[in-house]
This record gives sequence, structure tokens and C-alpha cells, in this order.
Amino acid sequence: MRIRIVLRVVGALLIFLSAAMLLPIPFSIYYGGSDTLSFLISAIITLLFGWLSFVKTKKSEDLRPKEGFAVVAFGWLALSAFGSLPFIISGAIPNYTDAFFETVSGFTTTGSSILTDVEVIPKGILFWRSLTHWIGGMGIILLTIAILPFLGVGGMQLFKAEVPGPVVDKLAPRIMMTAKILWFVYIVISVIECVLLLFAGMTLFDALCHTFGTMATGGFSIKNSSVAAYHSTIIDYIITFFMIVAGANFSLHYHGLKGNFSVYLKNREFRYFIYIIAGSTLIIAADIFINNHYNFVESIRYSLFQVVSIITTTGFATADYEKWSLSSQVILVFLMFIGGCAGSTAGGLKVMRIYLLLKFANSEIIRLLHPSAVVPIKMNDRIVDRKIIANVAGFFVIYMAITALSILTLTFLGADLYTSIGAVAATINNIGPGIGAVGPIGNFSSIHFLGKWLLSFLMLIGRLEIFTIIILLAPSFWKK
Amino acid sequence: MRIRIVLRVVGALLIFLSAAMLLPIPFSIYYGGSDTLSFLISAIITLLFGWLSFVKTKKSEDLRPKEGFAVVAFGWLALSAFGSLPFIISGAIPNYTDAFFETVSGFTTTGSSILTDVEVIPKGILFWRSLTHWIGGMGIILLTIAILPFLGVGGMQLFKAEVPGPVVDKLAPRIMMTAKILWFVYIVISVIECVLLLFAGMTLFDALCHTFGTMATGGFSIKNSSVAAYHSTIIDYIITFFMIVAGANFSLHYHGLKGNFSVYLKNREFRYFIYIIAGSTLIIAADIFINNHYNFVESIRYSLFQVVSIITTTGFATADYEKWSLSSQVILVFLMFIGGCAGSTAGGLKVMRIYLLLKFANSEIIRLLHPSAVVPIKMNDRIVDRKIIANVAGFFVIYMAITALSILTLTFLGADLYTSIGAVAATINNIGPGIGAVGPIGNFSSIHFLGKWLLSFLMLIGRLEIFTIIILLAPSFWKK
Repeated sequence: MRIRIVLRVVGALLIFLSAAMLLPIPFSIYYGGSDTLSFLISAIITLLFGWLSFVKTKKSEDLRPKEGFAVVAFGWLALSAFGSLPFIISGAIPNYTDAFFETVSGFTTTGSSILTDVEVIPKGILFWRSLTHWIGGMGIILLTIAILPFLGVGGMQLFKAEVPGPVVDKLAPRIMMTAKILWFVYIVISVIECVLLLFAGMTLFDALCHTFGTMATGGFSIKNSSVAAYHSTIIDYIITFFMIVAGANFSLHYHGLKGNFSVYLKNREFRYFIYIIAGSTLIIAADIFINNHYNFVESIRYSLFQVVSIITTTGFATADYEKWSLSSQVILVFLMFIGGCAGSTAGGLKVMRIYLLLKFANSEIIRLLHPSAVVPIKMNDRIVDRKIIANVAGFFVIYMAITALSILTLTFLGADLYTSIGAVAATINNIGPGIGAVGPIGNFSSIHFLGKWLLSFLMLIGRLEIFTIIILLAPSFWKK
Repeated sequence: MRIRIVLRVVGALLIFLSAAMLLPIPFSIYYGGSDTLSFLISAIITLLFGWLSFVKTKKSEDLRPKEGFAVVAFGWLALSAFGSLPFIISGAIPNYTDAFFETVSGFTTTGSSILTDVEVIPKGILFWRSLTHWIGGMGIILLTIAILPFLGVGGMQLFKAEVPGPVVDKLAPRIMMTAKILWFVYIVISVIECVLLLFAGMTLFDALCHTFGTMATGGFSIKNSSVAAYHSTIIDYIITFFMIVAGANFSLHYHGLKGNFSVYLKNREFRYFIYIIAGSTLIIAADIFINNHYNFVESIRYSLFQVVSIITTTGFATADYEKWSLSSQVILVFLMFIGGCAGSTAGGLKVMRIYLLLKFANSEIIRLLHPSAVVPIKMNDRIVDRKIIANVAGFFVIYMAITALSILTLTFLGADLYTSIGAVAATINNIGPGIGAVGPIGNFSSIHFLGKWLLSFLMLIGRLEIFTIIILLAPSFWKK
């Protein structure tokens, strides 16, 4: 592996990050916060390290697969490490473990927080916190649609044929081409949501922060009671709609923005995504209508919002679902693991993987009945290569093993079982709030500090589709 | 499918069962119970149905795969349906749901009970209850080592090369040959345990019942406090040793009884089985030594007994592990899912499958680094066919999906999350007691009656390696 090429890309990322750190300054000044200087200092430090890393290293047009993995992992780590500077320097989050946790949570678009009262935090810092989501979301789109397919990770190869843009042989130019198209889509949709939220009565600051949280399926809010603070049906539904958009494959939106809406109906993963949302919403709505004394319209509104918020792994809340029945809560935990569509900013296993896994399990049943039969597995009427299926199955095994071991470890660090399951599900799937002590009105501040590092690791591993991090731990990765 | 051939085999099983129903009678008479007549009546009813089913149907030397699946599934169902007669007729368990649950729990060697006080139950009925374990254990050995390899279920094909005895082309004679050898092994080891328990001070009745529970890794006890009731270190260690024996592959014991002990050391699955037991025992022993005020010797004794009891899916208890720390309890839940070795009477995923799944996941990581490399997966120095790996992965996916859906369903039926996880883990893995309300000193009587049917189904599906039941639900199974 040519580490200097990796460092060069990471350096470029840091230079970009330092520029982004200047964006909260207008809001900091406007709201008269004490945090203005911290952004300037953070930007200078980040620029310095980024610049050194960039100029002292080698340029290369072509990244090898190993270097691709390293860029992704170290890129996200570097963003999180330097992105935490404003929190520390401003004194908003003085403890480094907490600041790193919060920043990883931002860039991985998770939305888990260690803050117990966000409303006392300076506005500039809150803006930065939400902005880390939006930047992370850009990274995810690039990663899942443009980079991972070429690295052969966990079924993402399925995108190879579906990525828009001309086919270019070299990896780097092709990634840039795809990135430009998809970022354009991401920005256009973000602008639309922000404008709608302004019309619905939010200030520019509130609208931007919530747009960042929605489009990245992140979930950081600037209110202690999350979206519930606005008591607005129209805001609830705007955010619900854009969470669904953000949880769907951005390649579809590329076609959608060109006026071709039939792609949504034709896409099997998107259809199942909608079916799961509809089914879960109805069950939970019926449950809370009967047991929680909401009226009919409220039941649908709160149930739909929460189902969409959880399955898209956003994590916004309009109701304290811990007061709902255990059954409804357990459905939400299941939705945490399902997650959104592949190629979206959502986390979780992804609807596509679950679909492929169930198809695969079914094909094994058929093969028991007809041992010599060849049972092809199809997705969108195209036969899926057996290697991809194996890749997805391997992904599932590692994912379950990590989930299980993490729950075990958290209980060793003193958390109860319910909270442990909730915290692990919420972080490895990049949702944000979980259940138990880390539920929608709770936060992660009570977790043991070693537990916070574990959960930070889970956010990264979940966000980077597991293999990207795990592979760095394989000894053969580092061999010449 | 030739249903008449299936019915003939099931009929033969029932005739065998009716004979077995006479065995409790001497104990019933000796202890002066009111249950003597119930065995006679049950035996006559069972014989009648068995005989009709046997003589009115067709004989065939050769079973086709579909018929093999049907024999296994309907065989276990028929044993459970008729095996519950003594419970009902004697009045010991008048409710049919409960009686069926208890009998399925017996024949699947699970050991989950709906009885709140076993010590008031007539001795003959207790003997019958334990005997269903032992008969079930015989069935499991036959199933996993002789039948499933030929049906290609969930990795059991690995046994094809290891089954002792000459190769015979037709399925039925070969199964009988293997069965006779392995049943001989099963009976010899059972006799040894029973004699040792007699020497340790048990009555013949107690020794037989506990031998049945141990060898089948069942776990029904004749005492409310299970094995703890004897307050005997020597009995604890005898039962611990034979639980380990019963949790290991019986093909190994076939060689072991011939004096060839090196097979144990050479067998990779057995080695890992022992490592997991040793590691878990040490962790839990340290935990309860520090937190539960046991002395050093007691810590090892209780920890080892419980670890072995759970990983072999027996379910005997010498301590109320609900009083141990949450971490130790969560380790026990993990052991529930691991289970014993393939080819034993134990349930769970099996050490072999977990080993193969982790090897498989590792091979997928290596393939990311070397996309064109062929990464063979080995077990006991033999390369495992990719089809078998796919089969095991498919098994894992279905297993996890059923586990998840069952936990969800139980919470809908009113159980708390902790109890739901415990009850599902304890039944699908054929352990017996779980955690929460169904823990070692609790029982399954408080579960909703629909929940009892679900859990009965889980015991069957877990015991019959999932595919055997699932395949009957596939529409194409019933097509000509």
C-alpha cells in the first residue's frame, strides 16, 4: 500500500473541512455567541495539518483497492478527529471522549448525542454539529454509489451497472464524475426542503439545521424535544417526506429530477421500502390509537413520523415512543436493523440486503427439494451473481457477530440489557436515539467512557459498511 | 410424495411408542401412584392408531428425500401428540395446550416445563416425562448423523464421510446400520452414567430420570430445584461430565469406546467446544466469586455446571443464575445460541456451524483484498464444498429471521422483552429454562396459550434443524 497517496487524499479532505469550519461563523456572530473564535482556530489547525499532509505526499491518478479502503477509513477518522476541535475549543464539550463521540456521530450521520441540554449550546456550535451530518451525508453517497461497488463490499457491486454517467476505466475520474452528479441531486433536494421549512415558519437557522439532519438521515436537533418542539403538523409532514427521500437510492432521484418517475415504481428495493413503512405505520398507529389515547389523525401522524425516522435511521422524534407499548417499541428496534435503501444516506442492513438474504434462504430451501436445480436469485429482473450473494451473507454474519459481542461488552460496562440492545442497535445502524436509557428523551451521557469509544467504533463500522473497517484489522491487509 | 409410505413409518414409530409407554408402570406401582392405568390406556390407544397406520399402508425399501422430510416432521409430531396422552389421562396436566407443550419439550429434548411443582406429580408420570427425553435423544442421533446428511440439511452433509459402517446404496438399510451402532453407544454411556449416579447415592428412579435428562441434553428434573436438590458435589460433577459427553459428536464416542481417544483431540469442533466451555467458565467463575460470595471451589463448580448445562442445551440447574450479574447471564444467553457439537443430542446453532460461518466471513474479507483468489474453507483439514457453506449460511439467515419474529410475536402476546428473548432462545435452541419469567426457578406456565403453541413450534423447528419443518411449508413441496 502506498501510504503517501492515502495521506494526500486525507489531506485534501482536511483542507475541505477547514473551509467548512468557516460556515458557522455568520450564525455565531448573528446570535452573539462566544464560539466565533473557536471556528477560526479550528479551521487554521485543520488547514495546517491538511496542507502538510497534502503537499508532502505523492499524487496519483489511480487508487488501488487497498488504498481505496484506507482512504475511506482514515478519511472518516480524520474528519471526526479534527471536526471535534470546535466543540473542544469553544468549551461546549470539554471532554475529548464526548467531543469525539459527538463528532463521529455527526459525520457518520448517526445523531446519537451525549449532550443533555442542547438549547444552552451556542448557535454556531449547533450549526457546526448539524453541518457535520450534511457533510457526512455527501460522503456516504459518494461512498456507497461510487466507491464501494469497485471495492466489492457487501453487495454494493449491484450498483456497478446502475451508476449514472459514462463508463471510465480509471477509478478516480469515474468517482468524481458520479460524485458531481449525485451531489448536485443532494444539494437541489436540500434546497427544496430548506425553502419549504422556511415557508412552514422556521427561521433560516432552524430550517438549515433540520435540512442537514434530514437529508443526511442524521437526526441531530437543535431542540431538546427534537422536531416535537415545533408542534406543527406541516413541519412534521415536510420532514417525514424528505426523510423518505433521503432514505431512498439517490440514483433514483437523479432520474426523478429529470422527470422520469417510473424508476421509483420499477425499483424493487424502493417498493419494499415503502411497503415496510406502510405496514409498520398501520400496526403502530392502531396500537397507539387504542393504548395511548391519540385520536385517529394523530396516531397516523406520530406513527408515520417515527417509523420513517427510525427505518431511514434519522432519529428525529415527535413523540416519546418509550411511552408506547413494548410491541411497538420492538417493531421500531426491528426497523432499526432493516434500515433504508442502499445508495441512500440511511444506515442499517439495507432493504436490498434483507431482500437478497431472504431470496437466498428461499433458494436453499428449493435446492433441498431439487438438489441438482440451479436456482437463480434475481433483483430488478436481473440475475444476481452468486459471489455477490456470498458477499452479502458474509456481511450479515459479521454484522450479527459484532452486534452480539457489542451488546455483551456494554453489559460488562454496566448498562442494562435493554439499554445495551438499544445503544448498539442505534449506533451500528446509525440511527441516533435508541431505547432504554438512550431513548428519544434520554442521551448517551450516562454510558461508561469505554462504552462511548466502543459505540463510536460501531458508528464508524456501521457507516462504512463494516468490511471497510474490518479489512484494516486483517493482518494480510498490511503485508506487501 | 407417497403419503402411504410416510404413514407406514409413522405407524411403526407409534407402535414402538406404545411399548415404551409400558415402562413407567413398574415405577408407578412401586411408588403407589394413581397413574398406573393411564399408561395402559395410552399404550392401547397409541398401539391402535399405530397398527392401523402400519398395516393399511404400503411397504417400501427406499425413501425419497421428500418422504424423508415428511417422516421426520410427522414422526416427531405424532410422538408428541400421542406421547401427551399419559399426562392428560392421568390428570397430571389436564389442559391440552400444556400437555402438548410438555411432551414436545420432552421429545425435542428441550426441557422447558409448564409445571409449577413437579414434586406433587405421580412418579410414573415423572418417569414418562424423563423417558420422552431419552427416546427423543435416540431420534436426534439417528436424525443428525444418519438421515439429515442425505437430505442435505444445514451443513450436516459434512457427516457423510464420517458415518461409521459400510457404505450401502439404499437409504433405509444404511440408516438402520448407522442407527444400531450409535444407539449401542448411546445405551452403553447411559448405563455407565446411571451406575455412577447410583454409587453417588441416588435411588434407581432418580438415577434413571437424571440419566435420561443428561444423555438427551433434555433437562427435565424430578425436583423443583433441579440438580441443586441433591446438594452433592460428586453428583454435580458426574452430571457435568456426561452433559459434555452428550454434547459431543456421537461418532467420536463410537471410536472412543473402541479405545481410540485421539479422535477427540483431532476433531476441531470438539476442541473449540471445550475451549468455549473453559473460557466461559473462567469468566463467570471470576464474576460470581467477586460478586456473589461463593468461595473459589464453589465458583468453579457452579459456573462449570451452568456453562455446560446451557451450552449443551440441557438446562439442569444447580444455582439460580438469575441472581448472577447481568454480564454472566448474557454470556449464558450467547451460549444458548452456540449450542453443542453437531451429531450430539444438543441443540443450538452448533459449534461446527459457527466455526464455518466465521471461516466463511473471513474468506469474504480475504476475497476483498484478493478478488481473484480462491479461498478454500477447511474443516478438520478437509476442504468444505461451497454448497455446504451456502447451506449453512442459509440456515443462519432463516434461524435469525425466525428468532427475531418470534421475539416480536411474544411481546405482542404480553411478555416483557427480557422474558421473550429468554423464552425464544430457550426453545428454538432446545435448552429448557431461559431468563426472565421463564428462568431456572420460573417456568412457562405464565406464557399466553398462543405463545405456548408458538414455543412448541420453535422447539420442533429448532430440534429438526429448521429446514425439515420449513420445507413442509413451501408450496412446491406438495406439488407432484
